[in-house]
Amino acid sequence: MTNTKSFTGVLSPVLTPFAPDLSPDTERFVSHCRWLLEQGVSGLAVFGTTSEANSLSVGERMQLLDALVAEGISPDLLMPGTGCCSLTDTVQLTSHAVQNGCGGVLLLPPFYYKAVNEDGLFAHIAEVIERVDDDRLRIYLYHFPAIAVVCYSLDLIERLIKVYPSIVIGLKDSSGDWSNTESVLKQFPGLDVFPGSEVFLLPAMRAGGAGCITATANVNAAAIRNLYDRWQTPEAEMLQGDVSSLRKMIDGYPMIPALKQIIAHFRSDPSWCALRPPLVALSDAQVQSLLADLEQKKFALAA
Amino acid sequence: MTNTKSFTGVLSPVLTPFAPDLSPDTERFVSHCRWLLEQGVSGLAVFGTTSEANSLSVGERMQLLDALVAEGISPDLLMPGTGCCSLTDTVQLTSHAVQNGCGGVLLLPPFYYKAVNEDGLFAHIAEVIERVDDDRLRIYLYHFPAIAVVCYSLDLIERLIKVYPSIVIGLKDSSGDWSNTESVLKQFPGLDVFPGSEVFLLPAMRAGGAGCITATANVNAAAIRNLYDRWQTPEAEMLQGDVSSLRKMIDGYPMIPALKQIIAHFRSDPSWCALRPPLVALSDAQVQSLLADLEQKKFALAA
Repeated sequence: MTNTKSFTGVLSPVLTPFAPDLSPDTERFVSHCRWLLEQGVSGLAVFGTTSEANSLSVGERMQLLDALVAEGISPDLLMPGTGCCSLTDTVQLTSHAVQNGCGGVLLLPPFYYKAVNEDGLFAHIAEVIERVDDDRLRIYLYHFPAIAVVCYSLDLIERLIKVYPSIVIGLKDSSGDWSNTESVLKQFPGLDVFPGSEVFLLPAMRAGGAGCITATANVNAAAIRNLYDRWQTPEAEMLQGDVSSLRKMIDGYPMIPALKQIIAHFRSDPSWCALRPPLVALSDAQVQSLLADLEQKKFALAA
Repeated sequence: MTNTKSFTGVLSPVLTPFAPDLSPDTERFVSHCRWLLEQGVSGLAVFGTTSEANSLSVGERMQLLDALVAEGISPDLLMPGTGCCSLTDTVQLTSHAVQNGCGGVLLLPPFYYKAVNEDGLFAHIAEVIERVDDDRLRIYLYHFPAIAVVCYSLDLIERLIKVYPSIVIGLKDSSGDWSNTESVLKQFPGLDVFPGSEVFLLPAMRAGGAGCITATANVNAAAIRNLYDRWQTPEAEMLQGDVSSLRKMIDGYPMIPALKQIIAHFRSDPSWCALRPPLVALSDAQVQSLLADLEQKKFALAA
């Protein structure tokens, strides 16, 4: 059975809430995923950078995914991050995702060794694909130079989609560099390209993009979805301006602590502030400043 | 029971041999560890960068460590790398090492998130120490800016040894920057400091260092150990020149593939060349060139 549906629209890389002992808080996680779907996200990119996924063990990630599926979230809507430094970890997580019927996986390159040559990166991803050995596998490459350092270059993307055209079908570009996104869109028109920020949603759609996968969907999904739905209308520029304005404001703070703080505040649920180290909560001064900034804005969570 | 012995001398970050299916080759691993000890290394820094440890799963690392102990390698001599991106992985590996009686652990900082603040790095390591909760724990900080990117700054080292003076007792400096090693040695005279290359062994010993932890010990341990033993003799400069010369030659190649190639060649055991992607074997031209370069040199493995 081959999965023929691919993702489009606005996906949220889902924040991972933690209990006071820093174990993943499954109940709040499932409930947040449900809320995001109600807000109009077309997919849940669980276990991304925003999710502190690399601060979790492989077992913790699999348990959370199992819980989502057990709670009735359609696996079609899930695009878990599965790319680890270790070949065996990546294979285990990717197989687990496919066996659960996930619509796709978001794949970081192996990110420990730096300055590795592209033959090695290609060999790693090829090995993952061969070992998972399932024609339902759909890979979205996760390009995030500032954090992963190891990158998907245009050459590497080209090699991968040439050899695995029905498997390597998309890319999330978290470079924050529109010229890179534009190059990928131009060079690979068949690839489903998602910029990693809604700031680029309208330009991406105009250039043939598939949508966006953006951290701030955790707090502003409805407005970003509205922009996606209306990108060909006369209001598009205005809607883009609105979502960009909120995004740029939040970008003035450490993103993950800020998003957790916003959710904690508007849900009156301080437990949402918990982060796994090395991430740290906002300082009191940052919280004050963030909340004051937010008063100027309208967005989904505050509505 | 408190472990009072700390490491000094020459430690080898042990290469991990792989079977054709890229699973760890336990038999060759144990046998290589035994050979390194016969060659005079005073400790085995298994599961470091040289070991492709971040290309292994947590389970694979624990199985290899269990095998070493089961095969009678004294755990006192083991300094496994246990620092992962994930808090829970690091705690699991560190606890496992301590429970096996390992002399210490070599701790990478959590290396996924970049530009994290030092409070977060401190909190991560503090959390690991509190969770392992065993007074036998001995931590050697693993500073490797080119690969881990996330660093142990002088300020962070100071905070850690102030709060955990009997636990955070050493540091491996793989910066390749002698001025950094010198600063650490000067500022923290009680810390056991190991440069990450034998090129700095003599200057380190003269400045109060504890020895070195160096990848090339995998092929040249006896000579490096000889320099360590005789660092206060008139021959020290000459011995330093010899080991540095070999090291600098090997530094002209990708280190891990080159070391595996050297072992494969001199043991007539081509299976030693296997690497997990993203690392790749030397090209034929590189192999020819490396072997030609080696003909000019005398070193332990060739003897």
